[in-house]
Amino acid sequence: MSWREKVHEVIYEADTKAGKAFDVALLIVIILSLVLVVLDSVDHISIEYHTLFVNLEWIITIFFTIEYILRIISIKKPKSYIFSFYGIVDFLSTVPLYVSLIFASSGALLSLRALRLLRVFRVFKLVRYSGAGSKVSVALKRSLPKIFIFLYSVIIISVIAGTVMYLVEGPKHGFTSIPRGIYWTIVTLTTVGFGDIHPVTPLGQFIATLIMLLGYGVIAVPTGIVTAEMAKENTRTNTQVCYECGENEHRDDAEFCHKCGYSLNKSKKEKKDIEDAN
Amino acid sequence: MSWREKVHEVIYEADTKAGKAFDVALLIVIILSLVLVVLDSVDHISIEYHTLFVNLEWIITIFFTIEYILRIISIKKPKSYIFSFYGIVDFLSTVPLYVSLIFASSGALLSLRALRLLRVFRVFKLVRYSGAGSKVSVALKRSLPKIFIFLYSVIIISVIAGTVMYLVEGPKHGFTSIPRGIYWTIVTLTTVGFGDIHPVTPLGQFIATLIMLLGYGVIAVPTGIVTAEMAKENTRTNTQVCYECGENEHRDDAEFCHKCGYSLNKSKKEKKDIEDAN
Amino acid sequence: MSWREKVHEVIYEADTKAGKAFDVALLIVIILSLVLVVLDSVDHISIEYHTLFVNLEWIITIFFTIEYILRIISIKKPKSYIFSFYGIVDFLSTVPLYVSLIFASSGALLSLRALRLLRVFRVFKLVRYSGAGSKVSVALKRSLPKIFIFLYSVIIISVIAGTVMYLVEGPKHGFTSIPRGIYWTIVTLTTVGFGDIHPVTPLGQFIATLIMLLGYGVIAVPTGIVTAEMAKENTRTNTQVCYECGENEHRDDAEFCHKCGYSLNKSKKEKKDIEDAN
Amino acid sequence: MSWREKVHEVIYEADTKAGKAFDVALLIVIILSLVLVVLDSVDHISIEYHTLFVNLEWIITIFFTIEYILRIISIKKPKSYIFSFYGIVDFLSTVPLYVSLIFASSGALLSLRALRLLRVFRVFKLVRYSGAGSKVSVALKRSLPKIFIFLYSVIIISVIAGTVMYLVEGPKHGFTSIPRGIYWTIVTLTTVGFGDIHPVTPLGQFIATLIMLLGYGVIAVPTGIVTAEMAKENTRTNTQVCYECGENEHRDDAEFCHKCGYSLNKSKKEKKDIEDAN
Repeated sequence: MSWREKVHEVIYEADTKAGKAFDVALLIVIILSLVLVVLDSVDHISIEYHTLFVNLEWIITIFFTIEYILRIISIKKPKSYIFSFYGIVDFLSTVPLYVSLIFASSGALLSLRALRLLRVFRVFKLVRYSGAGSKVSVALKRSLPKIFIFLYSVIIISVIAGTVMYLVEGPKHGFTSIPRGIYWTIVTLTTVGFGDIHPVTPLGQFIATLIMLLGYGVIAVPTGIVTAEMAKENTRTNTQVCYECGENEHRDDAEFCHKCGYSLNKSKKEKKDIEDAN
Repeated sequence: MSWREKVHEVIYEADTKAGKAFDVALLIVIILSLVLVVLDSVDHISIEYHTLFVNLEWIITIFFTIEYILRIISIKKPKSYIFSFYGIVDFLSTVPLYVSLIFASSGALLSLRALRLLRVFRVFKLVRYSGAGSKVSVALKRSLPKIFIFLYSVIIISVIAGTVMYLVEGPKHGFTSIPRGIYWTIVTLTTVGFGDIHPVTPLGQFIATLIMLLGYGVIAVPTGIVTAEMAKENTRTNTQVCYECGENEHRDDAEFCHKCGYSLNKSKKEKKDIEDAN
Repeated sequence: MSWREKVHEVIYEADTKAGKAFDVALLIVIILSLVLVVLDSVDHISIEYHTLFVNLEWIITIFFTIEYILRIISIKKPKSYIFSFYGIVDFLSTVPLYVSLIFASSGALLSLRALRLLRVFRVFKLVRYSGAGSKVSVALKRSLPKIFIFLYSVIIISVIAGTVMYLVEGPKHGFTSIPRGIYWTIVTLTTVGFGDIHPVTPLGQFIATLIMLLGYGVIAVPTGIVTAEMAKENTRTNTQVCYECGENEHRDDAEFCHKCGYSLNKSKKEKKDIEDAN
Repeated sequence: MSWREKVHEVIYEADTKAGKAFDVALLIVIILSLVLVVLDSVDHISIEYHTLFVNLEWIITIFFTIEYILRIISIKKPKSYIFSFYGIVDFLSTVPLYVSLIFASSGALLSLRALRLLRVFRVFKLVRYSGAGSKVSVALKRSLPKIFIFLYSVIIISVIAGTVMYLVEGPKHGFTSIPRGIYWTIVTLTTVGFGDIHPVTPLGQFIATLIMLLGYGVIAVPTGIVTAEMAKENTRTNTQVCYECGENEHRDDAEFCHKCGYSLNKSKKEKKDIEDAN
């Protein structure tokens, strides 16, 4: 095994001890870099610990640079990595500090900060290391088409209700344009209710009441969709596998395969015979 | 096939290539006209692009006019279309600009804008082109009677709680009348909580707490209704009946009875044979 | 049939044509009286239509008085009616205007208004006439014990979180006492979020974030309870009745009564035999 | 039975009459002490009833002291109690008033108050006495891993959205730092919506709209998880197995097998006979 293969095993795989240790170390560095970006945005902390932050920023950037180079070197097809989603994210989370060196004029500090915030894309890396969410995400994926139709209806309702509220309340009471009316409608439908804009006229308040009651019923829909999808997964079938056709999603009380009609009990026996024979 | 039949096929049906293309084009024009109305309500955009908006408005209006005329000509019973829901919507979304020509006095501009906003009814057209939402809407329709009883209870609770809050807090703290108290109660029950009106006295805050906890429990009801209805649809098996053992709860993709292993397709054929024999 | 029995049939029962007509008429009068109370609380409407409101108020009061007297006369045990829940509600919704005659001093107008608002209790009458909500209410009743434990937990969480917020934010930022902290916590946990009080310090905002995420998880519980209860009702069993013991809640695939072990198929046959014999 | 064993039975167990009476008495004292702490935080009540509160505080403290000592004496392994969760809670809820005697300088009153608020931990005691919540808590426990993944995703979304809002809206409109942006995002995602900070720029409001719609879909997930878990528990039949046919999905109240009609009680007896025979 060449050193490239060894590096590949450590960086890209998580089966060996070294691979796992690398993943955990990377996770810690990513979270640390996120905490840095977040804390740096707080004015009084940013001023006090400025030198510390700059140094830590450089250490993390160098770590990410080495990691990025090793990822490119150790993979067989570097291009497929570089232009993959995580390849681009890795590049964008490494580059900002170097760019700030080149364009380091006095006034460029703010734009630099904006670039550094791109570092937040590192969080996408976090997602990569959590395979455990699969069950929930499967239920969500299967719910997606229904949820899109739902969102589509919500948008239509928002456009109509937003226009009506704009006409009824008008610019005097904060509804300065239809987009603002739509914004208010979504704030209301989703039951967020900031209160920055709110109806003042009796008619406006009456319509608002209707929208809220509608939102009350409407909030039930995505919940119902996701719940039904999750409950479906619960009732999903036992682990019997048909020996004849390989079908493995049988009803719990099935005695024969619903696909090929082969006896499931026979399947069990034959499986055992084979296991005993071996 | 006469030209009328051809036009009918293009406009009213979506089976042919031309029919599909027309539907997509219409969808784009409707969304464009909606975007125009929305953007025109934003003051600074409206002033800057005034001429462009007027021109686009005319192009869309002419397009809708031609479409409207073709729809009337190509259908066998024009009256049933004209007085149908979509017939009226189509008419209302075409007419405003023409009306503005006739009543074009200097002060009529504002009322014209109001008329133009009726154009938003075009969004109802969008609904027509989405047949995919049927599953969700079936579950919703079946939930409707329960949801009505629920809304009825919510209104009774709102009237009582609104009156109590009006008595407790009074006009001093924003509860200027019972309708306003009802408005506040619904804002609170639906967990929207704008904060434009809020209880100030300790007793009022205590009652508000009870209303919120009630709303907490109450929000569960429509969700429960819709979810249960959707879950019902999930477990809804197909109607195949095994000819051999009579078992009738088969998986949708079952080809053999899971109880006795008899072929379901054979069951169908035999059933048909018997029916044919009779 | 004496006239008392006739009156009883009209007022207390809804089987005959006259009985139904009376119920509908009563419903309309109750809603009308509610609308009157609500509108009377709006200042400018109250001033403009004062005489009309007073007259309508008297007509409704006389109607309710006659109804109340007829209810007492036509029932066998008047006491059981008078001291029943609806008996008291009927009395309280009839009396206010008469009381205002006796205590009609100049300053008593406000207290009169308060008394008149008791009329809102008439809405409880509305509940009586809606027997359709039984299914939903059955599911709710069965959920009650679980919901009480849930509310109990919410109150404990509120007391602790309210105290912590009172200590962290203090009277400066609106958290003037622990009850106010508890009020804020419930406003937040139930996702109402008025914004009349809100955390200002970073630590307070951090704790608020935790409370909100907790509330996010917690809101799932009552929904889950009610939904599960409603879904249960859906899967609830077929309509087979055991001929032997009368048990009627069997599993859908039951072939023998789970209570007495009697064959359900036999039950069907015997039932049919009896029906055929008749 | 020694007096220690008698005390143990009264304090730690709830089977005997005396044990139940003690539990109820303790519950009342805990709630009373909580009410005292809460009322004492309200300024005008605290001033008026100061002497009463101090006296009641001492009575409760002495009661808790005796209870704490008896708990230690009557148990076999005092250490395991003292360092258990409830042991520490009991200690912390007893000690504050004694500590205030030792450090009773003039300025220490405020810190004393803080110590006294630790008494709120007494509420944890309340939990001990409610064994009824087990069903709900079992469903919640089984939902925990899914809910953690969900919270993890919510935090990632919050960090990204909070940063974007900080960049878009900036310190001018209240988004003074990324942590504040994250706070706002969670306030919005959980549909609380205080309104203390809210987007002002059109772009910010557009992004807020997306976050709200996302939150709308996201709120469905924990609800779905808990509901599915609770529904699962509903369908969870008991563990009776029919001795005759082996069917094992009986209704909880089944006395005979619904498949073969064999007595389940007989099944239990025969099973026991066989076990006894072996």
